Amino acid sequence: MPNPTAAMLVIGDEILSGRTRDANMAHLAARLTAHGIDLREARVVADDHGAIMAAVNALRAGHDHLFTSGGIGPTHDDITADAVAAAFGVGIDVRADARALLEAHYARTGLELNAARLRMARIPEGAELIDNPISAAPGFTLGNVHVMAGVPSIFEAMVASVLDRVAGGAPVLSQTLRVERGEGEIATPLGRLAAEFPALSFGSYPYFQDGAHGAQIVVRGADRAAVDAAMQRLAELFPEAAG
Amino acid sequence: MPNPTAAMLVIGDEILSGRTRDANMAHLAARLTAHGIDLREARVVADDHGAIMAAVNALRAGHDHLFTSGGIGPTHDDITADAVAAAFGVGIDVRADARALLEAHYARTGLELNAARLRMARIPEGAELIDNPISAAPGFTLGNVHVMAGVPSIFEAMVASVLDRVAGGAPVLSQTLRVERGEGEIATPLGRLAAEFPALSFGSYPYFQDGAHGAQIVVRGADRAAVDAAMQRLAELFPEAAG
Repeated sequence: MPNPTAAMLVIGDEILSGRTRDANMAHLAARLTAHGIDLREARVVADDHGAIMAAVNALRAGHDHLFTSGGIGPTHDDITADAVAAAFGVGIDVRADARALLEAHYARTGLELNAARLRMARIPEGAELIDNPISAAPGFTLGNVHVMAGVPSIFEAMVASVLDRVAGGAPVLSQTLRVERGEGEIATPLGRLAAEFPALSFGSYPYFQDGAHGAQIVVRGADRAAVDAAMQRLAELFPEAAG
Repeated sequence: MPNPTAAMLVIGDEILSGRTRDANMAHLAARLTAHGIDLREARVVADDHGAIMAAVNALRAGHDHLFTSGGIGPTHDDITADAVAAAFGVGIDVRADARALLEAHYARTGLELNAARLRMARIPEGAELIDNPISAAPGFTLGNVHVMAGVPSIFEAMVASVLDRVAGGAPVLSQTLRVERGEGEIATPLGRLAAEFPALSFGSYPYFQDGAHGAQIVVRGADRAAVDAAMQRLAELFPEAAG
């Protein structure tokens, strides 16, 4: 059975303006790979209701899972929950269980649960909460869409919690060989080898560093014996390489 | 006149597997902001002909410019040029001027211009070359699509070269105020201020660090006087804040 597929949607003006460098995509990608879920596509859109709705509907239709990051805080630019509810055509309102989480958190910290903070208890109809061990305000899963916070520490905790209850597939194994030759010399034998192992993927990633250049050849696949066999063949093709 | 808009397409399995963390998006975002071009959306897709074609066609239709990164090297997984040609419905073949660039480069370096390397001279019909000062193999501009290498040093040089010949708009100015209060206390006055300055965008980015928490409030817009006035109002609202 093929692995489940996923897409990611990063929401936030700050990524598109260059102010903030996204860190959540690399984290999610690595966690999904280890869990046996194939991340097929990622998108970044601004804090814009229409753009979020359109991306949610396009990506949830094409993949088994959609993971979103950002836009679920208390400020005016946090519009993800409303846009996701609109994408599904369901209502959204403050929900008792989410409100109780916030009440307990703010009682502990001595802060007021004011109207702005209460916005974070607005949950689309039919969603399941995702635990936030850091600042209480929950994420949620609606259908196949997992809506999570953008702050990296909270995002990471929420990803772990979602993956605990989502079925994975065969973890994809990966091995790398560093070859100190230009890609132009590697290309033809590597292309032939890739054709011999159609179940594996062969990537070649050039580097140019301190005047030296070469490539990292990465072999990926779920079948350990096939990956090992391909690496053995690579080592014969490029005997000078360091693994 | 509103600023030109742009989208970015990052092409590469290695980003989606978590092996490599993309660096080009943050670079392009910052350069476009400085040039007065609004980056509205970014996507990451795998080394897959159909996925690249579909994304190129969706993004070039919706924006003034599309910038792509990755997949123009000599190996079997470098399929961007073919997918872009297919997206435009034009032919692609080795072109004399691109070939001459490679011949000169490999003559200088004493390496052979073999069949794999010659693939990098395949340019879609009607495209204009983008200079590659590092390893010679050019990028190209076809219509409103700028196709560039994924290696960050080459990508950055190509972006500079494209922006030299692409008209920009008003650079977007941005100022930040760091407020050591939870977003929940900032939200209501910030939302009111945002409503007073509809031409500006107000972002709030929470942080949780070493037990402390607060938010960076970012005001962005093309009108310096309006940005300054908004920052003055913010300083009055949050007098304890450090700019």
